[in-house]
Amino acid sequence: MNDGGVGAREPVREKNAPPERLLNETKVPRASPADRLARALLKAVGNPPIGIAVAGETFTAQQDDVVATIRVRDHATLIKLLLYPELNFGDAYADGSIVVEGDLVRLLEAGMRARRHARAPGVVRRIAGLLDAGRANTLTGSRDNIHHHYDLGNDFYKLWLDPEMVYTCAYFPDRNATLEEAQLAKLDYVCRKLQLRSGDRLIEAGCGWGALALHAAARFGAKVKAFNISREQIVFARERAQALGVQDRVEFIDDDYRNMSSRCDAFVSVGMLEHVGRDNYGELGRAIDRCLTDSGRGLIHSIGQDQPHPFNPWIVKRIFPGAYPPALREMMEIFEPWRLSVLDVENLRSHYALTVEHWLKRFEAHRDLVQAMYDESFVRAWRFYLSGSIAGFRTGELQLFQVLFNRSGHEAAWTRDHLYKNAE
Amino acid sequence: MNDGGVGAREPVREKNAPPERLLNETKVPRASPADRLARALLKAVGNPPIGIAVAGETFTAQQDDVVATIRVRDHATLIKLLLYPELNFGDAYADGSIVVEGDLVRLLEAGMRARRHARAPGVVRRIAGLLDAGRANTLTGSRDNIHHHYDLGNDFYKLWLDPEMVYTCAYFPDRNATLEEAQLAKLDYVCRKLQLRSGDRLIEAGCGWGALALHAAARFGAKVKAFNISREQIVFARERAQALGVQDRVEFIDDDYRNMSSRCDAFVSVGMLEHVGRDNYGELGRAIDRCLTDSGRGLIHSIGQDQPHPFNPWIVKRIFPGAYPPALREMMEIFEPWRLSVLDVENLRSHYALTVEHWLKRFEAHRDLVQAMYDESFVRAWRFYLSGSIAGFRTGELQLFQVLFNRSGHEAAWTRDHLYKNAE
Repeated sequence: MNDGGVGAREPVREKNAPPERLLNETKVPRASPADRLARALLKAVGNPPIGIAVAGETFTAQQDDVVATIRVRDHATLIKLLLYPELNFGDAYADGSIVVEGDLVRLLEAGMRARRHARAPGVVRRIAGLLDAGRANTLTGSRDNIHHHYDLGNDFYKLWLDPEMVYTCAYFPDRNATLEEAQLAKLDYVCRKLQLRSGDRLIEAGCGWGALALHAAARFGAKVKAFNISREQIVFARERAQALGVQDRVEFIDDDYRNMSSRCDAFVSVGMLEHVGRDNYGELGRAIDRCLTDSGRGLIHSIGQDQPHPFNPWIVKRIFPGAYPPALREMMEIFEPWRLSVLDVENLRSHYALTVEHWLKRFEAHRDLVQAMYDESFVRAWRFYLSGSIAGFRTGELQLFQVLFNRSGHEAAWTRDHLYKNAE
Repeated sequence: MNDGGVGAREPVREKNAPPERLLNETKVPRASPADRLARALLKAVGNPPIGIAVAGETFTAQQDDVVATIRVRDHATLIKLLLYPELNFGDAYADGSIVVEGDLVRLLEAGMRARRHARAPGVVRRIAGLLDAGRANTLTGSRDNIHHHYDLGNDFYKLWLDPEMVYTCAYFPDRNATLEEAQLAKLDYVCRKLQLRSGDRLIEAGCGWGALALHAAARFGAKVKAFNISREQIVFARERAQALGVQDRVEFIDDDYRNMSSRCDAFVSVGMLEHVGRDNYGELGRAIDRCLTDSGRGLIHSIGQDQPHPFNPWIVKRIFPGAYPPALREMMEIFEPWRLSVLDVENLRSHYALTVEHWLKRFEAHRDLVQAMYDESFVRAWRFYLSGSIAGFRTGELQLFQVLFNRSGHEAAWTRDHLYKNAE
């Protein structure tokens, strides 16, 4: 921290970089192969305050403030990590060839903070990165990509999501709200941002297990068409609509957002944009323009970034094929060509960190069940993914943008008071 | 309006374009030169529902729903309008060679709405547009540009601004608030978005007559450095600081924002970005990065647009040399390179329309005084500028963005409740 002094004159990406002179001061009698590899790895990832334990020795870039230690099974694993840490760290964690001693979330946080002042990746890592391009988000590519993640089985997600099965960032009116309360508050918050009224036609693109569509119908009286290309989710959502008696007001449609065509007074998409892919933002804007009435409102809720960077390759390869969290500038490609007017952007990054903390706690409480459903490697991969998500939202690697818009020049809420003062 | 039908498949920029078949149905015995010119002009600007009166005849593109009529002095004026309406309409209005019968604001609104479906401008208009490039916003260019507008004389602005002399968009908690209440509410709202606390060091870039700096010091206990390159404004602001007894807490600095260098807990700029010019957004970001502490917050309040278009050439030439209102996407060029994280964007377009309505009403109440201070052409030019601004904000040609940001990964307000629930 350098809070009080005179400002730096050159771009500063991170203020608390470890001072150079501390590096490599650990005294070892003679550099072993493990030593050289471990130090090269630490350097390659920006010398985070973590330890690397291999072949009976522990190496650190700094001597104190180690937040956690990575125990690496063998030299081969160490070499793999060195060649392409962004992908191979997750894989090695999942298959157990590395074990973390200490808090995994804090370790990943430290790694993310350090990476900002690491040198640019070498040739091998860059080539590996290029080879990692996922499946394109064409109409069939998207189906494959979505099936990979969302059709893992509703029973799995039921173990650790809230009862409404909301698998997106919650809104905690205060930090001590329960996950259930916070997800309900989010559904309500989104409907109120959209100024949803009874009888309004709402189109939802990417409706998950249907919680928002059902909420909009049951609590706000909206007539909803909800699109999704995850079959398991659609089946679940339709059953819930029946159970709630709103099946006449909510239609769950097993189709791609690009095929939506009927008119709507409000458009909403929560947690889908991450899967749309940058090449398709214009297409999404076109679909919205095709459907939204002149006086209509829209809201897009998406994970984002402060600067455009490729998404973590392990996440793209193992967890979310085809996913990309846009910078706010990139999101504007949806709105700008169609004269859609941005009314309100809210960044809920910290709410997503807290949401995933809840998920991880519940996931860990059920890990034996998950292991019985899949295997140990699956448990470890999901722990890694959830922990990395917490770290990402905590460190600001990831953001969560809610963007409210309407058609340029049309009327909108006079102020935002109504979101805070007249809560039901 | 096409609210209930099936959506159009092609880009639709404006839904209520006049139907083609209504055009040119006005019966005239034989096309006179005035007739041909007037019709060509109406067509060139998208056939708005307005009348053109010249040489004893009145021409319209549509036969009904004419919102106002332009009385044109002679054929030469009509030709000038036809060659380059974006510039020459304002000039002709100012020098009295055209007179508007009816509501000027409504006429300009109709013109702006029609322009969206006008054909692309011809060669003459495009060349004229290129030749119109204003003075660049270099360090000396900016001084000239700012002097042109803001040093017209404090006595002039006192006639029609609120007593605090706030010459930017107000925030009307409700539509019936007075201008004084709404400007005070805006100053408070901005300070609360910034979570300003007693003792915080605040830097303001482009402080106008000092109202926000003085408010932050007097009401929030901030220590303020406020930059401005308008000499008349600085003199006025320093006098007010003395009168309010906060001269030890507010320093008004006659310098360019690019020269600011001391550290601050909060950065604010209200109504300056319009004058910064797109080429300098990176430079503004660099200046913010140089000054803002790790835990600092910042807010930029600026006129903007939903799509990037050159600013109206008459405004750039006669009113605001060097001015450009950015699209939100373009504003991101300030934040993205420096890992500044956008926390909150609010669009206050409708509040600016109402603000300028108040200004115009006060301006008209004092027009005889203004005419005595300058001349009739000045009165007409300013009426045209203020009316055009109202029309711009009403029709969505112009937006008003308040963008709150901090450094990526650092803590921010948990929710926005505090802006609405705990008002002083």
